[in-house]
Amino acid sequence: MTDENALAELDRLRSSIDNLDAALVHLLAERFKCTQRVGELKATAHMPPADPAREEYQIKRLRGLAESSGLDPQFAEKFLALIIEQVIRNHVALREK
Amino acid sequence: MTDENALAELDRLRSSIDNLDAALVHLLAERFKCTQRVGELKATAHMPPADPAREEYQIKRLRGLAESSGLDPQFAEKFLALIIEQVIRNHVALREK
Repeated sequence: MTDENALAELDRLRSSIDNLDAALVHLLAERFKCTQRVGELKATAHMPPADPAREEYQIKRLRGLAESSGLDPQFAEKFLALIIEQVIRNHVALREK
Repeated sequence: MTDENALAELDRLRSSIDNLDAALVHLLAERFKCTQRVGELKATAHMPPADPAREEYQIKRLRGLAESSGLDPQFAEKFLALIIEQVIRNHVALREK
């Protein structure tokens, strides 16, 4: 492959990565809208903020989805941990309001 | 809202969260397919593995996307950092092959 062809393919791949990143950011924003609503609901209905059974279900499910889609399952777990950390931060902010 | 209604809405929200997670996992798998191809291309064409200008572009762009979609920009940056860490891990594994 000539350098010119390699650069053209690099540009194509980067444009796909940029598209995927835009989709990921928008899906994440939608996900946090859902968890925000869950937080409000739990606060109003006096449900406990944490739910270990639900978390265990999510971890197992995500591991399965990662395996079937070819995503590194360890990465999927780190990704979920990052999200849960942010959800907890949002719930604390909600309660302090 | 009665407890029964609250539980029904919680179930609906969790089902949406599960759908979004499946979409996120599949988009992430696709994104890593692209970066894997970038890694192979860079190795074949003897391009440097890191590209600080590209990274700077991505961070700025993601911050803008986060702001316009209502995602916490700090979360978006942590998310990108997690992805880049994994991309580097994959590239190292590729070179060791």
